[in-house]
Amino acid sequence: MSLPVPVLPDGVDPAWLPPAAFRAVGTRHTLILGSGPLVETVHGEVTEACARFGGRVDRAPEPGTGTTYDLVLELTGGDGSEAFTHGRESGRTTVTASGPAGLLYGFFHVVRLGEDAFRGERPPEAHRPVLALRMLDHWDNVAVHPVMGQVERGYAGGSLFWAEGRARGDLDRVRAYGRLLAACGINAVAVNNVNVHETEAHLLTHRIGEVAALADVLRPYGIRTHLSVTFAAPVVLGGLPTADPLDEGVRAWWAEATRRVYEEIEDFGGYVVKADSEGRPGPFAYGRSHADGANLLAAALEPYGGTVHWRAFVYDHRQDWRDRTTDRARAAYDHFAPLDGEFAPNAVLQVKHGPLDFQVREPVSPLIGAMERTRLAVEVQATQEYTGQQRHVCWLGPMWSEVLRFRPDGRVPVGASAPGGLVAVSNVGDDPFWTGHPLAQANLYTFGRLAWRPDADPVDVLDEWIRLTFTPGASADPARLTAGLHAVLDGSWRTYEKYTAPLGVGFMVQPGHHYGPSVDGYEYSPWGTYHFADRDGVGVDRSAATGTGYAAQYAKPWAEVYESPATCPDELLLFFHHMAYDHVLHSGKTVIQHIYDTHFEGVAEVAEAREVWASLAGLVDPARHARVAERYEEQLRGAREWRDQINSYFFRKSGVPDAQGRRIH
Amino acid sequence: MSLPVPVLPDGVDPAWLPPAAFRAVGTRHTLILGSGPLVETVHGEVTEACARFGGRVDRAPEPGTGTTYDLVLELTGGDGSEAFTHGRESGRTTVTASGPAGLLYGFFHVVRLGEDAFRGERPPEAHRPVLALRMLDHWDNVAVHPVMGQVERGYAGGSLFWAEGRARGDLDRVRAYGRLLAACGINAVAVNNVNVHETEAHLLTHRIGEVAALADVLRPYGIRTHLSVTFAAPVVLGGLPTADPLDEGVRAWWAEATRRVYEEIEDFGGYVVKADSEGRPGPFAYGRSHADGANLLAAALEPYGGTVHWRAFVYDHRQDWRDRTTDRARAAYDHFAPLDGEFAPNAVLQVKHGPLDFQVREPVSPLIGAMERTRLAVEVQATQEYTGQQRHVCWLGPMWSEVLRFRPDGRVPVGASAPGGLVAVSNVGDDPFWTGHPLAQANLYTFGRLAWRPDADPVDVLDEWIRLTFTPGASADPARLTAGLHAVLDGSWRTYEKYTAPLGVGFMVQPGHHYGPSVDGYEYSPWGTYHFADRDGVGVDRSAATGTGYAAQYAKPWAEVYESPATCPDELLLFFHHMAYDHVLHSGKTVIQHIYDTHFEGVAEVAEAREVWASLAGLVDPARHARVAERYEEQLRGAREWRDQINSYFFRKSGVPDAQGRRIH
Repeated sequence: MSLPVPVLPDGVDPAWLPPAAFRAVGTRHTLILGSGPLVETVHGEVTEACARFGGRVDRAPEPGTGTTYDLVLELTGGDGSEAFTHGRESGRTTVTASGPAGLLYGFFHVVRLGEDAFRGERPPEAHRPVLALRMLDHWDNVAVHPVMGQVERGYAGGSLFWAEGRARGDLDRVRAYGRLLAACGINAVAVNNVNVHETEAHLLTHRIGEVAALADVLRPYGIRTHLSVTFAAPVVLGGLPTADPLDEGVRAWWAEATRRVYEEIEDFGGYVVKADSEGRPGPFAYGRSHADGANLLAAALEPYGGTVHWRAFVYDHRQDWRDRTTDRARAAYDHFAPLDGEFAPNAVLQVKHGPLDFQVREPVSPLIGAMERTRLAVEVQATQEYTGQQRHVCWLGPMWSEVLRFRPDGRVPVGASAPGGLVAVSNVGDDPFWTGHPLAQANLYTFGRLAWRPDADPVDVLDEWIRLTFTPGASADPARLTAGLHAVLDGSWRTYEKYTAPLGVGFMVQPGHHYGPSVDGYEYSPWGTYHFADRDGVGVDRSAATGTGYAAQYAKPWAEVYESPATCPDELLLFFHHMAYDHVLHSGKTVIQHIYDTHFEGVAEVAEAREVWASLAGLVDPARHARVAERYEEQLRGAREWRDQINSYFFRKSGVPDAQGRRIH
Repeated sequence: MSLPVPVLPDGVDPAWLPPAAFRAVGTRHTLILGSGPLVETVHGEVTEACARFGGRVDRAPEPGTGTTYDLVLELTGGDGSEAFTHGRESGRTTVTASGPAGLLYGFFHVVRLGEDAFRGERPPEAHRPVLALRMLDHWDNVAVHPVMGQVERGYAGGSLFWAEGRARGDLDRVRAYGRLLAACGINAVAVNNVNVHETEAHLLTHRIGEVAALADVLRPYGIRTHLSVTFAAPVVLGGLPTADPLDEGVRAWWAEATRRVYEEIEDFGGYVVKADSEGRPGPFAYGRSHADGANLLAAALEPYGGTVHWRAFVYDHRQDWRDRTTDRARAAYDHFAPLDGEFAPNAVLQVKHGPLDFQVREPVSPLIGAMERTRLAVEVQATQEYTGQQRHVCWLGPMWSEVLRFRPDGRVPVGASAPGGLVAVSNVGDDPFWTGHPLAQANLYTFGRLAWRPDADPVDVLDEWIRLTFTPGASADPARLTAGLHAVLDGSWRTYEKYTAPLGVGFMVQPGHHYGPSVDGYEYSPWGTYHFADRDGVGVDRSAATGTGYAAQYAKPWAEVYESPATCPDELLLFFHHMAYDHVLHSGKTVIQHIYDTHFEGVAEVAEAREVWASLAGLVDPARHARVAERYEEQLRGAREWRDQINSYFFRKSGVPDAQGRRIH
């Protein structure tokens, strides 16, 4: 039975699946072969498209021999493969898959191609995701947190999943979300915050039915549901005296709890755990290792094919700022590298892409590539906690692509060596535009596509997103619309970097909410996030020779590249070295002049992007245009504030005037 | 009928009225002459004391001629005077008053004197308060504010008056509070926050009964109740289209609302208003002056003898930090000085003692002394928002005394020229020790006594507080106890100044909650609170010659004294001037070395005070001792944090090493 396409509530933006994106398929005659739930999802899609655009769809070849199908979607088996083969011959486009998920992805592949899918000839081409797990972690709270709100680090309204203290009753929006995710290749969602508070802890046990309801509507889109749990669950929920991972009672408790979860959700994905991190409970309390902790949950999940995602975000968040020997950047490697080989096969170590915390510029974490005998997932942050909080345009595709193309050992790129997959912290909420800033949708889409194919050129992915979302072909001036969108998005990450954090310095943000500048905001804090600016220079010496030794956590060639200011890339120089303001960069500029110049440039680039956007009025849906235009006002204000505070701060410290004589306060 | 002494709930500290404080009176034979409610309050006090200590009390001379009274308390009339005459002749101590309040104050005068009241001869001595209004403003919210909590800037638990969204039902604690206030001379209390939020606005109208209940229990202690109101009340509560002070409908609304208030509270004190300040509504919205605004309410109150307290805390809180010409310190004078003479006789302009906001060191506001034809009240802050938040010992007596002794025109001290009285923001809550930190009780007591007699030596007042509160005479070592208390309290304000803000620089605090250091916390903010530190120097040039002109707001001699660094007192130097780090102070030290030295000294002084306090164990009530000891741990930690952050900040900026080679991070 065909699954109807979800109906979007009034006023909700269709994102990258507007009806117009289905025109090419909807005008064709399609044959769908095979059966099973995901086939019905595809059937529903094609049926809806044909109803709108006049095509036809069959579930079996029409009797007789005369029928020529434009498109044949065929499921040939029932395995778990997500791969499909796509080709075109003699005027017939085909998608063949051995597993239902493959058929679904193949269908959306055809949608993405649009009319191109129905032109010329195309030899059969096999498509398969490079990374098996392509996951979104939602930091959504069930009960509104007094400080962090409904969605921790959420900038897009409330939670899609939870409202008024429980799972939403009307799940149409969640279904539509699942559909969007399927269309960009995401196959796993964790539905609650990794900081598991009191209320949320109970989702694991007597409130698992609410999770099951969400899983039910995500399943038809090939998405498995995961749950964040507290390591203290046996104590908090089970009333046990301990949560010691080696305790038999604890192991039995987790086994039984997990059994009950699978009773409710047969294809449950597994657990996500933040342990011994920023105050969360963990195995350290019992003198056990993080491998002990992860393996405890892995053992409980193993009989059912589930996975535990164990976050490597473990560091001392009560550091003394006076202590320059402790380096938070070292922490993940120091904690986890020695455990390589000790994790169960169904335990995934989830590592943030950088060693700190989603700053606009960090080196790739040295832990990535250092754990050959561990399933490791790379975690990025689609929600723009440190990159403008969806009030600023900051398309993160190029940053993620840099991470995925980075070769920790000089040979194999990260994107090909992360067997645990790619995970993003979601940027989605119940905002009508899904992501608050409509252009932030591009981050979600790009994430999914890069997870599928980490070596893709992110600009090509963006172009794909533009074609789907804005259907420029239907506009009065397709070339200008497309060029305009690329103009405001392609370089937006580097623009954001320019007007905020220079040369790899991070955390110059307002404490707490992390929006807007505060150069010394974290300088004397316990969070391990310092820049050590004084009147002579700025930056953290993380060299092995004279600093914290962090640079030596890398394999060659990076340990050597980062060790010396002579070879360290400019954009990471202050991350690895404390440099004098008059040090001359590879670019030929001094550090201080680089700071001034990039900050003036960054603001100019925002002002220009704002103008470009204004010029697109009439080519873009008015509501979407208005929302973006409004946010550009804030972005420009914010960029000026960043520029002026950063420049003033470093001018007051260094005393060096701007070579161009511009106004610094 | 005698009013019984309020019974303190279990565990509540008696503060400066422990039973032992009444021993001298309670062992005597007392005659009370006169009648009326306050006489019954006094009678209840003496009765209770005698019941405990074996004395006797009569309400009329015993028949016959033989009786010798030790103490005669006589009310000779029924006027509104608070004065009394006290003397001792032929073994008889007398207190005579023409008004009931005078008798009450005279009685507590005798209590304060203890056995001294009953020794030797004492010629009749007239006592009258120098300031007629001695008021506490409670920044208590009725509904818990999402950010500010139950008590805004409160560090002593919840509100004494309000709990669970309404006036407390059990008012024993409020009665006990009124008694404590009477014993130190306070005669007015505003029962709600000057930031009048939605819920609190309604106290003026249909919830006035709750205010009346509080007034009923404060009245027997000579205290009039005041209410903070919103200037927008006619709109918010009355549904009028405007709150324009010159609108007839608005005037009629206030007249009627006020009439109803006095129906409920016959001796209602009046209104407190924060208008056009930090976002509060005010007359500016209608193009009217603050005199228009204040006079509107004054007119409504006038028929009943009420007063409006109109706060002068008006400034631009959305200032651009880049703009160095706008100076928040100028704001109160600029707004209000031109209005001198325009305020109604029953309008009191309530002026913060300093031009900014209760920093540990500010000059006296130039507005004080600049409004000869205006009733002006001086506002100080007993709640320690910027002075350690009742986790640090900071006895403010010396600071307040400096303010009260300051002679704006070089002749008449503030304490003799504030016809509107003295107002303190209360530091009291429902904490068992009233003020969180038991030693912060001294601030409340000192405030009341200085309001009565502004030229008193604050150390004498403190000594009085010690004698009442700790009754050293009953301890094992009276001299050591008294000396110890003086050691930890007398210099605590200067100690706090030492380890926090040097030379008149303010606002180097954590934004929002204002606890702990953040040197640049307000430097790039819209709040008008800057220090302008750069690599060469620090401070704000407020001179007339080259700065904001603030110094010229003072009359002579101060305009001249403050204008030049050569004559400006060291402790205010950076308030008035931007000085190089190597500038030599009158003390002979450079600015930078002064910063280092005072910060090291401040921490050493806290460490020493902590030791002194520890040594008083056994001489002090154990619960009180434990609470203070615990807070000293936090104070010492906090003082070190202040020292290290301030010193590091200025070392990193200046590059000047400490002359003594101490460790700076």
